Amino acid sequence: MPILSEKVAINIRFSEVDSLLIVWHGHYLKYFEDAREAFGRKYGLGYLEMYAQGFVTPIVNIHCEYKAPLAYGDEAIAEITYRDSKAAKIEMEYKITNARTGALLATGYSTQVFLDRAKSELQLIIPAFFAEWKEKWGIE
Amino acid sequence: MPILSEKVAINIRFSEVDSLLIVWHGHYLKYFEDAREAFGRKYGLGYLEMYAQGFVTPIVNIHCEYKAPLAYGDEAIAEITYRDSKAAKIEMEYKITNARTGALLATGYSTQVFLDRAKSELQLIIPAFFAEWKEKWGIE
Amino acid sequence: MPILSEKVAINIRFSEVDSLLIVWHGHYLKYFEDAREAFGRKYGLGYLEMYAQGFVTPIVNIHCEYKAPLAYGDEAIAEITYRDSKAAKIEMEYKITNARTGALLATGYSTQVFLDRAKSELQLIIPAFFAEWKEKWGIE
Amino acid sequence: MPILSEKVAINIRFSEVDSLLIVWHGHYLKYFEDAREAFGRKYGLGYLEMYAQGFVTPIVNIHCEYKAPLAYGDEAIAEITYRDSKAAKIEMEYKITNARTGALLATGYSTQVFLDRAKSELQLIIPAFFAEWKEKWGIE
Repeated sequence: MPILSEKVAINIRFSEVDSLLIVWHGHYLKYFEDAREAFGRKYGLGYLEMYAQGFVTPIVNIHCEYKAPLAYGDEAIAEITYRDSKAAKIEMEYKITNARTGALLATGYSTQVFLDRAKSELQLIIPAFFAEWKEKWGIE
Repeated sequence: MPILSEKVAINIRFSEVDSLLIVWHGHYLKYFEDAREAFGRKYGLGYLEMYAQGFVTPIVNIHCEYKAPLAYGDEAIAEITYRDSKAAKIEMEYKITNARTGALLATGYSTQVFLDRAKSELQLIIPAFFAEWKEKWGIE
Repeated sequence: MPILSEKVAINIRFSEVDSLLIVWHGHYLKYFEDAREAFGRKYGLGYLEMYAQGFVTPIVNIHCEYKAPLAYGDEAIAEITYRDSKAAKIEMEYKITNARTGALLATGYSTQVFLDRAKSELQLIIPAFFAEWKEKWGIE
Repeated sequence: MPILSEKVAINIRFSEVDSLLIVWHGHYLKYFEDAREAFGRKYGLGYLEMYAQGFVTPIVNIHCEYKAPLAYGDEAIAEITYRDSKAAKIEMEYKITNARTGALLATGYSTQVFLDRAKSELQLIIPAFFAEWKEKWGIE
Protein backbone atom coordinates (compact mmCIF):
# COMPACT_ATOMS: atom_id res chain seq x y z
CA MET A 1 0.00 0.00 0.00
CA PRO A 2 1.39 3.39 -0.93
CA ILE A 3 2.26 5.84 1.81
CA LEU A 4 0.43 9.13 1.41
CA SER A 5 2.14 11.96 3.21
CA GLU A 6 2.92 15.64 3.02
CA LYS A 7 5.25 18.10 4.73
CA VAL A 8 4.83 21.79 5.47
CA ALA A 9 7.12 24.39 6.96
CA ILE A 10 5.66 25.63 10.23
CA ASN A 11 5.13 29.34 10.63
CA ILE A 12 5.93 29.91 14.33
CA ARG A 13 4.31 33.18 15.30
CA PHE A 14 5.68 35.44 18.01
CA SER A 15 2.25 35.28 19.63
CA GLU A 16 2.46 31.49 19.85
CA VAL A 17 5.46 31.54 22.19
CA ASP A 18 4.50 31.53 25.85
CA SER A 19 6.07 32.92 28.99
CA LEU A 20 8.35 29.88 29.26
CA LEU A 21 9.82 30.99 25.91
CA ILE A 22 8.50 27.94 24.08
CA VAL A 23 5.54 27.43 21.78
CA TRP A 24 2.44 26.87 23.91
CA HIS A 25 1.44 23.20 23.62
CA GLY A 26 -2.05 23.92 22.29
CA HIS A 27 -0.72 25.61 19.17
CA TYR A 28 0.63 22.30 17.88
CA LEU A 29 -2.96 21.43 16.96
CA LYS A 30 -2.83 24.34 14.51
CA TYR A 31 0.37 22.97 13.02
CA PHE A 32 -1.28 19.56 12.68
CA GLU A 33 -4.14 21.29 10.90
CA ASP A 34 -1.73 23.18 8.64
CA ALA A 35 -0.35 19.77 7.67
CA ARG A 36 -3.83 18.29 7.26
CA GLU A 37 -4.82 21.13 4.96
CA ALA A 38 -1.66 20.76 2.89
CA PHE A 39 -2.41 17.03 2.65
CA GLY A 40 -5.94 17.89 1.52
CA ARG A 41 -4.62 20.16 -1.23
CA LYS A 42 -2.06 17.60 -2.40
CA TYR A 43 -4.41 14.61 -2.47
CA GLY A 44 -7.77 16.26 -3.16
CA LEU A 45 -9.20 15.73 0.32
CA GLY A 46 -9.72 19.29 1.55
CA TYR A 47 -12.56 20.60 3.71
CA LEU A 48 -14.15 22.38 0.77
CA GLU A 49 -13.97 19.31 -1.45
CA MET A 50 -15.55 17.08 1.17
CA TYR A 51 -18.14 19.74 1.88
CA ALA A 52 -18.99 19.83 -1.83
CA GLN A 53 -19.53 16.06 -1.58
CA GLY A 54 -22.04 16.66 1.20
CA PHE A 55 -19.87 15.83 4.19
CA VAL A 56 -18.13 17.46 7.07
CA THR A 57 -15.40 15.58 8.88
CA PRO A 58 -15.08 16.69 12.49
CA ILE A 59 -12.15 15.62 14.63
CA VAL A 60 -13.29 13.03 17.18
CA ASN A 61 -9.97 12.53 18.88
CA ILE A 62 -6.53 14.07 18.83
CA HIS A 63 -3.33 13.30 20.64
CA CYS A 64 0.07 14.94 20.92
CA GLU A 65 3.34 13.83 22.52
CA TYR A 66 5.89 16.57 23.13
CA LYS A 67 9.51 15.43 22.89
CA ALA A 68 11.45 18.71 22.72
CA PRO A 69 10.30 22.32 22.70
CA LEU A 70 9.96 24.78 19.84
CA ALA A 71 11.30 28.29 20.35
CA TYR A 72 10.72 31.57 18.55
CA GLY A 73 12.96 31.65 15.48
CA ASP A 74 13.12 27.87 15.19
CA GLU A 75 12.51 26.33 11.80
CA ALA A 76 10.33 23.28 11.96
CA ILE A 77 8.46 20.92 9.67
CA ALA A 78 5.08 19.30 10.21
CA GLU A 79 4.70 15.96 8.47
CA ILE A 80 1.38 14.18 8.08
CA THR A 81 0.82 10.58 7.02
CA TYR A 82 -2.46 8.92 6.16
CA ARG A 83 -3.09 5.72 8.14
CA ASP A 84 -5.76 3.59 6.52
CA SER A 85 -8.70 2.34 8.54
CA LYS A 86 -11.39 -0.09 7.47
CA ALA A 87 -13.95 2.02 9.31
CA ALA A 88 -15.64 5.16 8.01
CA LYS A 89 -12.89 7.32 9.46
CA ILE A 90 -9.94 9.42 8.42
CA GLU A 91 -6.91 8.68 10.56
CA MET A 92 -3.77 10.75 10.38
CA GLU A 93 -0.38 10.65 12.06
CA TYR A 94 1.81 13.68 12.63
CA LYS A 95 5.47 14.42 13.25
CA ILE A 96 7.06 17.74 14.02
CA THR A 97 10.78 17.87 13.33
CA ASN A 98 13.54 20.45 13.47
CA ALA A 99 14.06 21.62 9.90
CA ARG A 100 17.83 21.80 10.22
CA THR A 101 18.79 18.86 12.41
CA GLY A 102 15.88 16.56 11.65
CA ALA A 103 15.41 15.99 15.40
CA LEU A 104 11.97 14.72 16.35
CA LEU A 105 10.10 17.32 18.43
CA ALA A 106 6.56 15.95 18.63
CA THR A 107 4.31 13.19 17.37
CA GLY A 108 0.56 12.87 17.28
CA TYR A 109 -2.51 11.45 15.65
CA SER A 110 -6.11 12.37 14.94
CA THR A 111 -9.33 10.67 13.90
CA GLN A 112 -12.10 12.27 11.87
CA VAL A 113 -15.54 10.90 11.10
CA PHE A 114 -17.98 11.68 8.30
CA LEU A 115 -21.16 13.58 9.03
CA ASP A 116 -23.85 14.07 6.43
CA ARG A 117 -23.89 17.85 6.30
CA ALA A 118 -27.60 18.08 5.56
CA LYS A 119 -28.77 15.74 8.30
CA SER A 120 -25.83 15.86 10.71
CA GLU A 121 -25.88 12.09 10.67
CA LEU A 122 -22.80 10.07 11.47
CA GLN A 123 -21.85 7.87 8.51
CA LEU A 124 -21.18 4.32 9.61
CA ILE A 125 -20.38 3.17 6.09
CA ILE A 126 -17.57 4.70 4.07
CA PRO A 127 -19.05 7.39 1.79
CA ALA A 128 -18.81 6.56 -1.92
CA PHE A 129 -16.60 9.54 -2.68
CA PHE A 130 -14.09 8.42 -0.04
CA ALA A 131 -14.05 4.83 -1.34
CA GLU A 132 -13.27 6.29 -4.77
CA TRP A 133 -10.60 8.50 -3.26
CA LYS A 134 -8.95 5.44 -1.69
CA GLU A 135 -9.09 3.57 -4.94
CA LYS A 136 -7.62 6.47 -6.85
CA TRP A 137 -4.60 6.52 -4.54
CA GLY A 138 -4.17 2.75 -4.54
CA ILE A 139 -5.36 2.16 -0.99
CA GLU A 140 -7.42 -0.78 -0.02
CA MET B 1 -28.99 60.52 27.23
CA PRO B 2 -28.40 57.50 29.46
CA ILE B 3 -25.00 55.83 29.48
CA LEU B 4 -25.18 52.17 28.54
CA SER B 5 -22.20 50.22 29.76
CA GLU B 6 -21.12 46.89 31.16
CA LYS B 7 -18.08 45.43 32.90
CA VAL B 8 -16.63 41.94 32.81
CA ALA B 9 -13.77 40.32 34.65
CA ILE B 10 -11.08 39.31 32.18
CA ASN B 11 -9.97 35.72 32.16
CA ILE B 12 -6.22 36.01 31.38
CA ARG B 13 -5.13 32.66 30.08
CA PHE B 14 -1.61 31.31 30.51
CA SER B 15 -1.50 30.83 26.74
CA GLU B 16 -2.20 34.54 26.21
CA VAL B 17 1.01 35.67 27.88
CA ASP B 18 3.90 36.03 25.46
CA SER B 19 7.66 35.63 25.76
CA LEU B 20 7.96 39.17 27.17
CA LEU B 21 5.81 37.93 30.09
CA ILE B 22 2.90 40.19 29.18
CA VAL B 23 -0.39 39.51 27.45
CA TRP B 24 0.20 39.61 23.68
CA HIS B 25 -1.40 42.78 22.32
CA GLY B 26 -3.69 40.99 19.90
CA HIS B 27 -5.54 39.19 22.68
CA TYR B 28 -7.04 42.48 23.88
CA LEU B 29 -9.45 42.21 20.95
CA LYS B 30 -10.81 39.06 22.58
CA TYR B 31 -11.28 40.95 25.83
CA PHE B 32 -13.09 43.71 23.95
CA GLU B 33 -15.31 41.03 22.45
CA ASP B 34 -15.92 39.47 25.87
CA ALA B 35 -17.14 42.91 26.95
CA ARG B 36 -19.22 43.35 23.77
CA GLU B 37 -20.90 40.01 24.36
CA ALA B 38 -21.63 40.83 27.99
CA PHE B 39 -23.09 44.14 26.80
CA GLY B 40 -25.21 42.23 24.29
CA ARG B 41 -26.55 39.94 27.00
CA LYS B 42 -27.30 42.83 29.36
CA TYR B 43 -29.02 45.03 26.81
CA GLY B 44 -30.46 42.49 24.38
CA LEU B 45 -28.06 43.20 21.55
CA GLY B 46 -26.24 39.91 21.14
CA TYR B 47 -25.06 38.29 17.90
CA LEU B 48 -27.80 35.69 18.05
CA GLU B 49 -30.50 38.28 18.65
CA MET B 50 -29.34 40.44 15.76
CA TYR B 51 -29.00 37.35 13.59
CA ALA B 52 -32.59 36.44 14.44
CA GLN B 53 -33.56 39.93 13.24
CA GLY B 54 -31.90 39.18 9.91
CA PHE B 55 -28.63 41.02 10.42
CA VAL B 56 -24.98 40.40 11.00
CA THR B 57 -22.83 43.20 12.35
CA PRO B 58 -19.21 42.83 11.28
CA ILE B 59 -16.48 44.97 12.79
CA VAL B 60 -15.31 47.57 10.26
CA ASN B 61 -12.67 49.18 12.42
CA ILE B 62 -11.02 48.59 15.74
CA HIS B 63 -8.42 50.47 17.70
CA CYS B 64 -6.45 49.83 20.87
CA GLU B 65 -4.09 52.01 22.91
CA TYR B 66 -1.88 50.15 25.37
CA LYS B 67 -1.03 52.14 28.52
CA ALA B 68 0.42 49.52 30.84
CA PRO B 69 0.90 45.77 30.43
CA LEU B 70 -1.12 42.85 31.75
CA ALA B 71 0.74 39.95 33.32
CA TYR B 72 -0.23 36.39 34.12
CA GLY B 73 -2.09 36.36 37.41
CA ASP B 74 -3.28 39.96 37.06
CA GLU B 75 -6.91 40.67 37.72
CA ALA B 76 -8.39 43.04 35.20
CA ILE B 77 -11.73 44.42 34.13
CA ALA B 78 -12.96 45.19 30.62
CA GLU B 79 -15.53 47.97 30.47
CA ILE B 80 -17.57 48.73 27.38
CA THR B 81 -19.68 51.83 26.75
CA TYR B 82 -22.12 52.43 23.92
CA ARG B 83 -21.41 55.64 22.00
CA ASP B 84 -24.42 56.71 19.98
CA SER B 85 -24.06 57.50 16.27
CA LYS B 86 -26.66 58.94 13.93
CA ALA B 87 -25.43 56.57 11.23
CA ALA B 88 -26.41 52.93 10.79
CA LYS B 89 -23.52 51.82 12.97
CA ILE B 90 -22.79 50.39 16.39
CA GLU B 91 -19.95 52.26 18.05
CA MET B 92 -18.37 51.05 21.26
CA GLU B 93 -15.63 52.30 23.55
CA TYR B 94 -13.51 50.08 25.75
CA LYS B 95 -11.39 50.42 28.86
CA ILE B 96 -9.22 47.82 30.50
CA THR B 97 -8.40 48.53 34.12
CA ASN B 98 -6.56 46.82 36.93
CA ALA B 99 -9.24 45.23 39.12
CA ARG B 100 -7.48 46.08 42.36
CA THR B 101 -5.94 49.49 41.79
CA GLY B 102 -8.31 50.81 39.15
CA ALA B 103 -5.30 51.87 37.05
CA LEU B 104 -6.09 52.35 33.36
CA LEU B 105 -4.28 49.75 31.25
CA ALA B 106 -5.79 50.17 27.79
CA THR B 107 -8.48 52.00 25.87
CA GLY B 108 -10.05 51.31 22.53
CA TYR B 109 -13.03 51.61 20.25
CA SER B 110 -14.78 49.68 17.51
CA THR B 111 -17.35 50.28 14.80
CA GLN B 112 -19.79 47.71 13.46
CA VAL B 113 -22.13 48.00 10.51
CA PHE B 114 -25.33 46.17 9.67
CA LEU B 115 -25.39 43.65 6.83
CA ASP B 116 -28.60 42.07 5.64
CA ARG B 117 -27.74 38.45 6.29
CA ALA B 118 -29.74 37.14 3.33
CA LYS B 119 -28.34 39.53 0.75
CA SER B 120 -25.07 40.58 2.35
CA GLU B 121 -26.11 44.14 1.68
CA LEU B 122 -24.75 47.00 3.76
CA GLN B 123 -27.60 48.82 5.50
CA LEU B 124 -27.29 52.58 5.03
CA ILE B 125 -30.42 53.28 7.06
CA ILE B 126 -30.75 52.20 10.68
CA PRO B 127 -32.65 48.87 10.79
CA ALA B 128 -36.06 49.10 12.45
CA PHE B 129 -35.13 46.70 15.23
CA PHE B 130 -32.13 48.86 16.13
CA ALA B 131 -34.21 52.06 16.15
CA GLU B 132 -36.57 50.30 18.57
CA TRP B 133 -33.66 49.13 20.65
CA LYS B 134 -32.44 52.72 20.95
CA GLU B 135 -35.88 53.92 21.92
CA LYS B 136 -36.26 51.20 24.50
CA TRP B 137 -33.04 52.29 26.20
CA GLY B 138 -33.90 55.99 26.04
CA ILE B 139 -31.34 56.97 23.44
CA GLU B 140 -32.31 60.20 21.68
CA MET C 1 -7.31 8.18 48.60
CA PRO C 2 -9.18 11.47 48.33
CA ILE C 3 -10.31 12.68 44.93
CA LEU C 4 -8.95 16.11 44.11
CA SER C 5 -10.99 17.89 41.47
CA GLU C 6 -12.30 21.26 40.41
CA LYS C 7 -14.90 22.61 38.01
CA VAL C 8 -14.99 25.83 36.02
CA ALA C 9 -17.57 27.41 33.78
CA ILE C 10 -16.24 27.63 30.23
CA ASN C 11 -16.21 31.01 28.59
CA ILE C 12 -16.98 30.14 24.93
CA ARG C 13 -15.82 33.07 22.85
CA PHE C 14 -17.42 34.04 19.56
CA SER C 15 -13.96 33.81 18.00
CA GLU C 16 -13.64 30.19 19.10
CA VAL C 17 -16.56 29.01 16.96
CA ASP C 18 -15.51 27.87 13.51
CA SER C 19 -17.19 27.86 10.13
CA LEU C 20 -19.01 24.62 10.98
CA LEU C 21 -20.70 26.59 13.80
CA ILE C 22 -19.01 24.59 16.52
CA VAL C 23 -16.07 25.33 18.79
CA TRP C 24 -12.87 24.51 16.91
CA HIS C 25 -11.38 21.34 18.41
CA GLY C 26 -8.06 22.94 19.32
CA HIS C 27 -9.69 25.41 21.70
CA TYR C 28 -10.59 22.59 24.10
CA LEU C 29 -6.95 22.62 25.17
CA LYS C 30 -7.54 26.15 26.45
CA TYR C 31 -10.56 24.93 28.41
CA PHE C 32 -8.46 22.12 29.86
CA GLU C 33 -5.91 24.75 30.86
CA ASP C 34 -8.61 26.94 32.40
CA ALA C 35 -9.53 23.92 34.51
CA ARG C 36 -5.88 23.18 35.34
CA GLU C 37 -5.36 26.75 36.48
CA ALA C 38 -8.49 26.67 38.63
CA PHE C 39 -7.23 23.41 40.13
CA GLY C 40 -3.88 25.09 40.81
CA ARG C 41 -5.57 27.96 42.60
CA LYS C 42 -7.77 25.64 44.68
CA TYR C 43 -5.03 23.23 45.72
CA GLY C 44 -1.96 25.47 45.69
CA LEU C 45 -0.38 23.98 42.59
CA GLY C 46 -0.32 26.91 40.18
CA TYR C 47 2.37 27.76 37.64
CA LEU C 48 3.61 30.65 39.73
CA GLU C 49 3.79 28.57 42.90
CA MET C 50 5.72 25.81 41.16
CA TYR C 51 7.94 28.40 39.50
CA ALA C 52 8.67 29.89 42.92
CA GLN C 53 9.74 26.38 44.00
CA GLY C 54 12.21 26.34 41.12
CA PHE C 55 10.27 24.22 38.66
CA VAL C 56 8.38 24.47 35.43
CA THR C 57 5.99 21.72 34.46
CA PRO C 58 5.61 21.46 30.69
CA ILE C 59 2.92 19.31 29.13
CA VAL C 60 4.46 16.18 27.60
CA ASN C 61 1.29 14.68 26.27
CA ILE C 62 -2.31 15.64 25.87
CA HIS C 63 -5.35 13.85 24.52
CA CYS C 64 -8.93 14.80 23.77
CA GLU C 65 -11.98 12.75 22.75
CA TYR C 66 -14.87 14.74 21.29
CA LYS C 67 -18.31 13.25 22.01
CA ALA C 68 -20.68 16.07 21.07
CA PRO C 69 -20.05 19.60 19.80
CA LEU C 70 -20.12 22.92 21.62
CA ALA C 71 -21.93 25.82 19.98
CA TYR C 72 -21.85 29.56 20.53
CA GLY C 73 -24.17 30.37 23.42
CA ASP C 74 -23.81 26.94 25.02
CA GLU C 75 -23.07 26.79 28.71
CA ALA C 76 -20.47 24.20 29.56
CA ILE C 77 -18.36 23.07 32.48
CA ALA C 78 -14.77 21.83 32.45
CA GLU C 79 -13.97 19.41 35.24
CA ILE C 80 -10.44 18.36 36.11
CA THR C 81 -9.42 15.47 38.35
CA TYR C 82 -5.95 14.68 39.65
CA ARG C 83 -4.84 11.12 38.89
CA ASP C 84 -1.95 10.08 41.09
CA SER C 85 1.20 8.62 39.55
CA LYS C 86 4.18 7.11 41.35
CA ALA C 87 6.45 8.78 38.80
CA ALA C 88 7.66 12.39 38.89
CA LYS C 89 4.68 13.51 36.84
CA ILE C 90 1.44 15.42 37.16
CA GLU C 91 -1.41 13.55 35.51
CA MET C 92 -4.80 15.11 35.02
CA GLU C 93 -8.11 13.95 33.58
CA TYR C 94 -10.68 16.26 32.04
CA LYS C 95 -14.39 16.22 31.30
CA ILE C 96 -16.43 18.80 29.44
CA THR C 97 -20.15 18.63 30.15
CA ASN C 98 -23.23 20.59 29.20
CA ALA C 99 -24.00 22.86 32.16
CA ARG C 100 -27.75 22.39 31.89
CA THR C 101 -28.24 18.77 30.86
CA GLY C 102 -25.05 17.30 32.30
CA ALA C 103 -24.42 15.53 28.98
CA LEU C 104 -20.80 14.51 28.44
CA LEU C 105 -19.25 16.46 25.55
CA ALA C 106 -15.56 15.62 25.75
CA THR C 107 -12.98 13.80 27.83
CA GLY C 108 -9.22 14.07 27.93
CA TYR C 109 -6.02 13.74 29.88
CA SER C 110 -2.61 15.35 30.13
CA THR C 111 0.79 14.59 31.61
CA GLN C 112 3.27 17.16 32.89
CA VAL C 113 6.84 16.62 34.00
CA PHE C 114 9.07 18.67 36.29
CA LEU C 115 11.99 20.63 34.86
CA ASP C 116 14.50 22.34 37.07
CA ARG C 117 14.01 25.91 35.89
CA ALA C 118 17.65 26.90 36.43
CA LYS C 119 19.20 23.94 34.64
CA SER C 120 16.34 22.80 32.41
CA GLU C 121 16.91 19.31 33.76
CA LEU C 122 14.15 16.73 33.77
CA GLN C 123 13.44 15.60 37.34
CA LEU C 124 13.31 11.81 37.55
CA ILE C 125 12.58 11.87 41.26
CA ILE C 126 9.53 13.61 42.70
CA PRO C 127 10.56 17.10 43.86
CA ALA C 128 10.34 17.59 47.63
CA PHE C 129 7.71 20.31 47.34
CA PHE C 130 5.47 18.01 45.32
CA ALA C 131 5.89 15.13 47.82
CA GLU C 132 4.82 17.56 50.54
CA TRP C 133 1.92 18.72 48.43
CA LYS C 134 0.74 15.10 48.06
CA GLU C 135 1.04 14.53 51.78
CA LYS C 136 -0.86 17.69 52.58
CA TRP C 137 -3.78 16.53 50.46
CA GLY C 138 -3.73 13.00 51.84
CA ILE C 139 -2.45 11.26 48.72
CA GLU C 140 -0.73 8.01 49.62
CA MET D 1 13.61 59.01 1.40
CA PRO D 2 13.52 55.34 0.39
CA ILE D 3 10.40 53.32 1.04
CA LEU D 4 11.07 50.27 3.18
CA SER D 5 8.42 47.63 2.77
CA GLU D 6 7.85 43.90 2.63
CA LYS D 7 5.09 41.53 1.57
CA VAL D 8 4.13 38.12 2.88
CA ALA D 9 1.57 35.56 1.79
CA ILE D 10 -1.02 35.11 4.53
CA ASN D 11 -1.60 31.61 5.83
CA ILE D 12 -5.38 31.63 6.54
CA ARG D 13 -6.02 28.81 8.93
CA PHE D 14 -9.32 26.92 9.07
CA SER D 15 -9.44 27.76 12.77
CA GLU D 16 -9.29 31.48 11.98
CA VAL D 17 -12.59 31.49 10.11
CA ASP D 18 -15.56 32.26 12.32
CA SER D 19 -19.21 31.27 12.26
CA LEU D 20 -19.97 34.03 9.73
CA LEU D 21 -17.60 32.18 7.38
CA ILE D 22 -15.06 34.99 7.37
CA VAL D 23 -11.74 35.43 9.15
CA TRP D 24 -12.43 36.72 12.67
CA HIS D 25 -11.34 40.36 12.81
CA GLY D 26 -8.87 39.86 15.66
CA HIS D 27 -6.72 37.49 13.60
CA TYR D 28 -5.67 40.34 11.31
CA LEU D 29 -3.32 41.44 14.10
CA LYS D 30 -1.50 38.15 13.62
CA TYR D 31 -1.22 38.85 9.90
CA PHE D 32 0.14 42.30 10.68
CA GLU D 33 2.66 40.64 12.96
CA ASP D 34 3.57 38.10 10.28
CA ALA D 35 4.34 41.10 8.06
CA ARG D 36 6.26 42.90 10.83
CA GLU D 37 8.39 39.82 11.39
CA ALA D 38 9.10 39.44 7.69
CA PHE D 39 10.06 43.13 7.64
CA GLY D 40 12.36 42.51 10.60
CA ARG D 41 14.07 39.63 8.81
CA LYS D 42 14.50 41.61 5.59
CA TYR D 43 15.82 44.80 7.17
CA GLY D 44 17.53 43.47 10.29
CA LEU D 45 14.99 44.78 12.77
CA GLY D 46 13.63 41.60 14.32
CA TYR D 47 12.59 41.05 17.94
CA LEU D 48 15.67 38.96 18.64
CA GLU D 49 18.02 41.54 17.13
CA MET D 50 16.48 44.38 19.12
CA TYR D 51 16.53 42.21 22.22
CA ALA D 52 20.23 41.57 21.66
CA GLN D 53 20.68 45.36 21.56
CA GLY D 54 19.03 45.56 24.97
CA PHE D 55 15.56 46.65 23.94
CA VAL D 56 12.06 45.36 23.68
CA THR D 57 9.57 47.20 21.51
CA PRO D 58 6.01 46.72 22.73
CA ILE D 59 3.06 47.79 20.64
CA VAL D 60 1.47 50.92 22.14
CA ASN D 61 -1.31 51.30 19.63
CA ILE D 62 -2.78 49.37 16.75
CA HIS D 63 -5.58 50.07 14.34
CA CYS D 64 -7.36 48.12 11.63
CA GLU D 65 -9.95 49.10 9.02
CA TYR D 66 -11.83 46.22 7.40
CA LYS D 67 -12.86 46.87 3.79
CA ALA D 68 -13.85 43.42 2.55
CA PRO D 69 -13.83 40.01 4.23
CA LEU D 70 -11.38 37.14 3.94
CA ALA D 71 -12.77 33.64 3.52
CA TYR D 72 -11.29 30.19 3.97
CA GLY D 73 -9.37 29.30 0.84
CA ASP D 74 -8.70 32.92 -0.09
CA GLU D 75 -5.19 33.88 -1.04
CA ALA D 76 -4.12 37.15 0.47
CA ILE D 77 -1.02 39.27 0.92
CA ALA D 78 -0.01 41.37 3.92
CA GLU D 79 2.14 44.37 3.04
CA ILE D 80 3.99 46.41 5.63
CA THR D 81 5.61 49.81 5.11
CA TYR D 82 7.87 51.69 7.50
CA ARG D 83 6.68 55.23 8.23
CA ASP D 84 9.45 57.35 9.68
CA SER D 85 8.88 59.28 12.90
CA LYS D 86 11.19 61.81 14.54
CA ALA D 87 10.24 60.36 17.92
CA ALA D 88 11.71 57.26 19.56
CA LYS D 89 9.07 55.08 17.95
CA ILE D 90 8.62 52.48 15.25
CA GLU D 91 5.58 53.22 13.12
CA MET D 92 4.28 50.79 10.56
CA GLU D 93 1.45 50.78 8.05
CA TYR D 94 -0.28 47.67 6.80
CA LYS D 95 -2.35 46.62 3.82
CA ILE D 96 -4.08 43.32 3.22
CA THR D 97 -4.90 42.63 -0.41
CA ASN D 98 -6.42 39.81 -2.41
CA ALA D 99 -3.48 37.96 -3.98
CA ARG D 100 -5.25 37.38 -7.28
CA THR D 101 -7.27 40.54 -7.89
CA GLY D 102 -5.18 43.00 -5.91
CA ALA D 103 -8.36 44.29 -4.22
CA LEU D 104 -7.74 46.11 -0.95
CA LEU D 105 -9.23 44.16 1.97
CA ALA D 106 -7.88 45.96 5.03
CA THR D 107 -5.53 48.70 6.15
CA GLY D 108 -3.96 49.44 9.49
CA TYR D 109 -1.09 50.91 11.45
CA SER D 110 0.83 50.30 14.65
CA THR D 111 3.23 52.15 16.90
CA GLN D 112 5.96 50.57 18.99
CA VAL D 113 8.15 52.19 21.61
CA PHE D 114 11.56 51.22 22.96
CA LEU D 115 11.90 49.87 26.47
CA ASP D 116 15.26 49.27 28.05
CA ARG D 117 14.96 45.55 28.73
CA ALA D 118 17.06 45.65 31.90
CA LYS D 119 15.29 48.56 33.54
CA SER D 120 11.92 48.51 31.78
CA GLU D 121 12.41 52.21 31.13
CA LEU D 122 10.73 53.94 28.25
CA GLN D 123 13.32 55.44 25.90
CA LEU D 124 12.48 59.04 25.06
CA ILE D 125 15.54 59.43 22.84
CA ILE D 126 16.11 57.23 19.81
CA PRO D 127 18.44 54.37 20.81
CA ALA D 128 21.85 54.50 19.10
CA PHE D 129 21.33 51.17 17.32
CA PHE D 130 18.08 52.45 15.80
CA ALA D 131 19.69 55.71 14.65
CA GLU D 132 22.33 53.58 12.93
CA TRP D 133 19.67 51.37 11.44
CA LYS D 134 17.96 54.42 9.94
CA GLU D 135 21.24 55.69 8.53
CA LYS D 136 22.05 52.31 7.04
CA TRP D 137 18.77 52.29 5.14
CA GLY D 138 19.11 55.90 3.97
CA ILE D 139 16.46 57.37 6.23
CA GLU D 140 17.74 60.89 6.77
